[in-house]
Amino acid sequence: MFAIRLEQKALTLYPFPADLINRRIREVLPEPNEEIGSLVDYLLAGSGKMLRPRLVFLSASLYPHEPQLVIDMAAAVELVHLASLVHDDVIDQSDCRRGRDSLNHCFGNLASVLTGDYLFATAFQLVNRHGQQAILNTLTSTIQTMCAGEIQQMQLAFDVEISEADYLQKSYRKTACLFAACCRIGALASVMPDAEAAALEEYGLCLGYAYQIIDDLLDFMSDRDKLGKPCGSDLREGNITLPVICLLREDEPAAWLRAAIDQKDFSDVMIENVTSACINHGAIDKCLQLAFDFIARGLAQLESLPPGPARKELMSMGKLLLKNYYRSLRCDLHMPEEERTSS
Amino acid sequence: MFAIRLEQKALTLYPFPADLINRRIREVLPEPNEEIGSLVDYLLAGSGKMLRPRLVFLSASLYPHEPQLVIDMAAAVELVHLASLVHDDVIDQSDCRRGRDSLNHCFGNLASVLTGDYLFATAFQLVNRHGQQAILNTLTSTIQTMCAGEIQQMQLAFDVEISEADYLQKSYRKTACLFAACCRIGALASVMPDAEAAALEEYGLCLGYAYQIIDDLLDFMSDRDKLGKPCGSDLREGNITLPVICLLREDEPAAWLRAAIDQKDFSDVMIENVTSACINHGAIDKCLQLAFDFIARGLAQLESLPPGPARKELMSMGKLLLKNYYRSLRCDLHMPEEERTSS
Repeated sequence: MFAIRLEQKALTLYPFPADLINRRIREVLPEPNEEIGSLVDYLLAGSGKMLRPRLVFLSASLYPHEPQLVIDMAAAVELVHLASLVHDDVIDQSDCRRGRDSLNHCFGNLASVLTGDYLFATAFQLVNRHGQQAILNTLTSTIQTMCAGEIQQMQLAFDVEISEADYLQKSYRKTACLFAACCRIGALASVMPDAEAAALEEYGLCLGYAYQIIDDLLDFMSDRDKLGKPCGSDLREGNITLPVICLLREDEPAAWLRAAIDQKDFSDVMIENVTSACINHGAIDKCLQLAFDFIARGLAQLESLPPGPARKELMSMGKLLLKNYYRSLRCDLHMPEEERTSS
Repeated sequence: MFAIRLEQKALTLYPFPADLINRRIREVLPEPNEEIGSLVDYLLAGSGKMLRPRLVFLSASLYPHEPQLVIDMAAAVELVHLASLVHDDVIDQSDCRRGRDSLNHCFGNLASVLTGDYLFATAFQLVNRHGQQAILNTLTSTIQTMCAGEIQQMQLAFDVEISEADYLQKSYRKTACLFAACCRIGALASVMPDAEAAALEEYGLCLGYAYQIIDDLLDFMSDRDKLGKPCGSDLREGNITLPVICLLREDEPAAWLRAAIDQKDFSDVMIENVTSACINHGAIDKCLQLAFDFIARGLAQLESLPPGPARKELMSMGKLLLKNYYRSLRCDLHMPEEERTSS
């Protein structure tokens, strides 16, 4: 099952200019008043692994490209991602994001909606500055799809009849389409042939699905400190993810799980019971296998691309997702022997 | 004082293709799921006077232009306006907008934020489809300014020290900059010389200030049925508008008004007292005079533009604002004799 061995030094083969991109983000945000300035500082300080700008940068790096254009497109993609995070905070009324208090919690709905709008506008402005019509079209279509995904999630809230196909469609809209768009934008910012660009986009899509599945697993398998939010948050908010969908297909847990969801009984004990059932009934393994399959399918797409450090780095990004998964596991949960010894 | 006589048949000189623009808005919204579709239907059904697309259309009509481009830019501007209305609903937690329940009230914060994002993305996509880099830049800068204005309003909430200059800056950001942008976009969509485009933008700016002042006056001077929201809503939300700023400068009302604002005593009786004081201390007249001055300044800008039906229509838009003001007044409030006889 654990066919992909994790590399210790993932993501160091090809230097990723995170500082340059962050500096560019600050440069293009004119911050017309202090309030927006401090909101943006707060947001950038909590900025994560920059997976999406990394995909733009590495994709473009496979072929000749204009470096400043690529930095700017990577910055634009991160701005769109940050904007959607900020708007998700409004929606979910969630208290935590990335382990710190959410922007919404600190500054209220007003600040979150406006800061999100401000970031979106700045992202479009940056792409437009380069006259990149195809990239701008990719970004706007992706935002439309992401909105549709969030609305679908709202419609499917607490719905125990949700199918695996619904889950995958929702994951495509919420997450995978932006990962694919990042690869496509990187391709458009370089002189990449169409066939290679399509393969790269497919890789991004697969990586996005795997990312979402692993993220949903960690909601049960990690603890609050490592996750940065309370365990079982998805279920508490009615977001029925793949491990729960798997459980709902098993006779024994399905009965009490349906009852708990109907009655919205999401006590800590209940969340712990769901987690144990996910492990014992093989739901975690099944989901993990699906994430592996997506990563393998994504990596296969990279074979048609020019070999070199950028391609190697794209390959290790798939492995990085798994590495992050194992690192984030709760200490009391079983970790595969192979992974424990390799780290 | 009432130097500008109101015309009975305002806005009929030059046919405005409202139906074409509304049809185009529906066409470009792909509505990937039913939920977004019904949200958009709801929003368009309550669509107002379309002042902003009207400004785009009439501005472009002064000089040769490509009709489909102008229709699309007018549609894009209305999409941006609708998106900002929807996001304002999230912010204000307001219950009513344009006399109907707000989107937020009916569908919740989630739907409002996502529908707004969806409309923004669609507006940018439509402008980008025509490769109109300068228009897209105008739109993104305007949205940044509008966000800054809303944040400024939040910062100044319940602040009795707010100055007339603060109020005008806030009005520029919240309203006048989009009116000016509409004229600029119309100019960019036609073959207008720079000097004429600048005059037209100045006209839009003046019209925007007048619109905001009149809107703020009506919050006191209209009733719930005509206004579509409870009277005194601005003050209740801490939004201290020009008539209240005028009152705060007068010794007698300033004392009890400051106390009421400090204690957030916004009973119906208190709002009625504020309205009466605004009338009796000349605050309404002063604000109305300022709105008149802005309209007159705006109309003067139009003199350098080519005469004809489009220019005439732009002239009558200023008068229309005043006409709408008098039409919306509460029946029990005094109406100037001249206006009463002319209608």
